[in-house]
Amino acid sequence: MNSPDAFNALCPTRQILDRIADKWTVLLLGLLAGRTMRFNELRRGVDGLSQKVLSQTLKSLERDGLVTRAVYPTVPVTVEYAITDLGRTLAATLEPLRLWAESHMNVIEQARADFDRRQQAAA
Amino acid sequence: MNSPDAFNALCPTRQILDRIADKWTVLLLGLLAGRTMRFNELRRGVDGLSQKVLSQTLKSLERDGLVTRAVYPTVPVTVEYAITDLGRTLAATLEPLRLWAESHMNVIEQARADFDRRQQAAA
Repeated sequence: MNSPDAFNALCPTRQILDRIADKWTVLLLGLLAGRTMRFNELRRGVDGLSQKVLSQTLKSLERDGLVTRAVYPTVPVTVEYAITDLGRTLAATLEPLRLWAESHMNVIEQARADFDRRQQAAA
Repeated sequence: MNSPDAFNALCPTRQILDRIADKWTVLLLGLLAGRTMRFNELRRGVDGLSQKVLSQTLKSLERDGLVTRAVYPTVPVTVEYAITDLGRTLAATLEPLRLWAESHMNVIEQARADFDRRQQAAA
């Protein structure tokens, strides 16, 4: 058996990388690393995330062993999501990515403006 | 002006996060952090990446100020891509993500098998 290698399209790590290198995963695990949350709390916590995509993403995270889902028989039913120990190791890896985006916003926007100006000048 | 906040859909960091939390960005910056490479070297280095998607991704990386593109008037033309200092800070942030995927491949695959077995048992 070969070593895991995300540069190889046939290695399972490629598909795992595709799942975890995802903005919703970054944001949802970021919230759940703080505390257990209900579905609607997560929905409110990540602006612009539809109910459908939230459901799909949470199901994938649960299937990957990164979050657990608990259902309490209240009226209406309460559904809570908690991060697992495995999810916590991934959240710690993803957190710097979100912080990088936030701290380099201005320099990226400047680079884009410069690029677009050069393209226009060359056209 | 508010602080950068990727949880807010209207903050530019959300769109930046979407661009950088991407498997091709992770893999391409991972290669370019090692050395300057030609287009075809990059294409061979990332298995399963089409020429079209490689072109689009490299153009976005160039626009974001993460790589530079140099054209040399050889026959045929030589096009080389190099990582910038800014790109290097992002590559250092993304590298742990690829390593996480590679080192947790088995535990994720086991979690998926367990989840699918539970789903089938409940059906």
